[in-house]
Amino acid sequence: MRRVVVALGGNALLRRGAPDTYEEAYRAARAAAERVADIAADGWEVVVTHGNGPQVGRILIQQEAASGQVHPMPLDVCGAESQGQIGYLLQVTIGDVFYERGMERPVATVLTLTRVRPDDPAFEDPTKFIGPYFTAEQAERLTAERGWVMRPDPHGGYRRVVPSPRPYSVVETPVIERLVADGVVVIAAGGGGVPVIEEGPRLIGREGVVDKDLAAAILAHEVRASALLILTDVEQVQIDFGTPAARGIDRMSASRARELLAAGAFGAGSMAPKIEAAIGFLASGGRRVHIGELDHAPAVLRGDGGTTILPDDAMAEEPDGR
Amino acid sequence: MRRVVVALGGNALLRRGAPDTYEEAYRAARAAAERVADIAADGWEVVVTHGNGPQVGRILIQQEAASGQVHPMPLDVCGAESQGQIGYLLQVTIGDVFYERGMERPVATVLTLTRVRPDDPAFEDPTKFIGPYFTAEQAERLTAERGWVMRPDPHGGYRRVVPSPRPYSVVETPVIERLVADGVVVIAAGGGGVPVIEEGPRLIGREGVVDKDLAAAILAHEVRASALLILTDVEQVQIDFGTPAARGIDRMSASRARELLAAGAFGAGSMAPKIEAAIGFLASGGRRVHIGELDHAPAVLRGDGGTTILPDDAMAEEPDGR
Repeated sequence: MRRVVVALGGNALLRRGAPDTYEEAYRAARAAAERVADIAADGWEVVVTHGNGPQVGRILIQQEAASGQVHPMPLDVCGAESQGQIGYLLQVTIGDVFYERGMERPVATVLTLTRVRPDDPAFEDPTKFIGPYFTAEQAERLTAERGWVMRPDPHGGYRRVVPSPRPYSVVETPVIERLVADGVVVIAAGGGGVPVIEEGPRLIGREGVVDKDLAAAILAHEVRASALLILTDVEQVQIDFGTPAARGIDRMSASRARELLAAGAFGAGSMAPKIEAAIGFLASGGRRVHIGELDHAPAVLRGDGGTTILPDDAMAEEPDGR
Repeated sequence: MRRVVVALGGNALLRRGAPDTYEEAYRAARAAAERVADIAADGWEVVVTHGNGPQVGRILIQQEAASGQVHPMPLDVCGAESQGQIGYLLQVTIGDVFYERGMERPVATVLTLTRVRPDDPAFEDPTKFIGPYFTAEQAERLTAERGWVMRPDPHGGYRRVVPSPRPYSVVETPVIERLVADGVVVIAAGGGGVPVIEEGPRLIGREGVVDKDLAAAILAHEVRASALLILTDVEQVQIDFGTPAARGIDRMSASRARELLAAGAFGAGSMAPKIEAAIGFLASGGRRVHIGELDHAPAVLRGDGGTTILPDDAMAEEPDGR
């Protein structure tokens, strides 16, 4: 059976501009669940990964608001909490859609840790803004009291910044692979997984944020998926996105993607890590990466819409491949 | 291989009187992990379940403190969050102990839902206090705005009460059983699992609290465990606990336990549901229930300490069985 890792963008559970209520989260999860079920119905074994940016942000705001009553937990623990929260909504809605369609597929959420290197340069240079906004005075106090690195946020005020280390392996791969091979739709590596370092025999949680697409690519390789499907809120990968010269890409080779990435064609926004994830997956033996809109996920996975990125050898067979 | 479900009391992750910091939670998880590893080393396949009372209480306090900024999530979502939080700490510490001892056993946390009946009388009579304390005025407002049932708490102030419906099946049993049969130490049914009802083909989360020992007993039956080990902070089951007539029980039959339970010998505290769980597990085919202190878990599981409860037929072989 064909196997795919489906990476849902953060917006899959909180639509842009929607209020951050439970009802909206449920509705968004349900919409994502329909597309996941479509893909399963097309004959794919499915692992679902997802972002957690908005959700972990809300947990951090809640922690700070109650910090006089309840000791805040470190970011790795909050990430694990968010995996529970989001996994629950996805699992219930995916399960519902399966039952409604008469498909018998168990769904399970596996709490996931992602290995990162203790000497990852990101630990020396935290760049990822997270959690609530503070005044300059509060920021200074938080640095003194908790050792947080605080930076002025482009939107005003100060926020904590944390490292975004590169993942190199997923701790739960053996478990996830076992389940997916048995026909279980597995929800895993939420928010990129909780980053852990190995210290001798121990796994130690680190406060940081792992890019969810990079983690999805590692997981896709490790569970021997043939395809990686990255779902977001744009129709296609674009070159020079947001400029008058912008144009969409239907298909490209891994080499071409690497060239364009090196040339800065994808901007510094959220597309660059997706392309990086795609390149990494194809370099490690993956056969296909598709990037496109959640609403059209099944078509995107068939290469009918969105952007398809293929290994050079597969692309060479097509004269217009470049 | 022998298979056991180990139910960790809420105090396993927050020792009585200890501050509710991350460091304390980690230390408590690590202590529990040592005992779980002892049991695995004794040749048991292990499923670990745990309470979540203090943890979900803290999440609810945090939600309320931030309710002006972030929409609070319903209790079922908070329960799922707590499973992520606690599962993470247990999984990391259990994994660490295994590695340190040279034992190669994967550990995984499976987010768990527990089926309850929509017509469970508990839904008409919520009794379980949860979350923060409020004034009478606040309580009135919360009832009006959110439909919460509020009651005066014996410790003063008002708190929300929620139903505690009886679980009858665990949604993720097939997944959990598959993993445990493959040698994975599975953490599941945390906090008794998120209660869900079946409405036609759909699973719908309900705001309520499932007793974690009752859920553990259901799970133990469903994964065909031979033993259920309920760990708490008292050495033994006692009759007339807290009175001058109090005495510990080394062994008893299921029938004897049922008689004593009916006679109110275990008080209305936390022991009664444990005995009920024990009776339920033995009635459904379980071979042994052990109740005792976390610190002595491996001995308790061998029947060397704590209280052992056996099916009547097994007990009949021993003349002093009563």
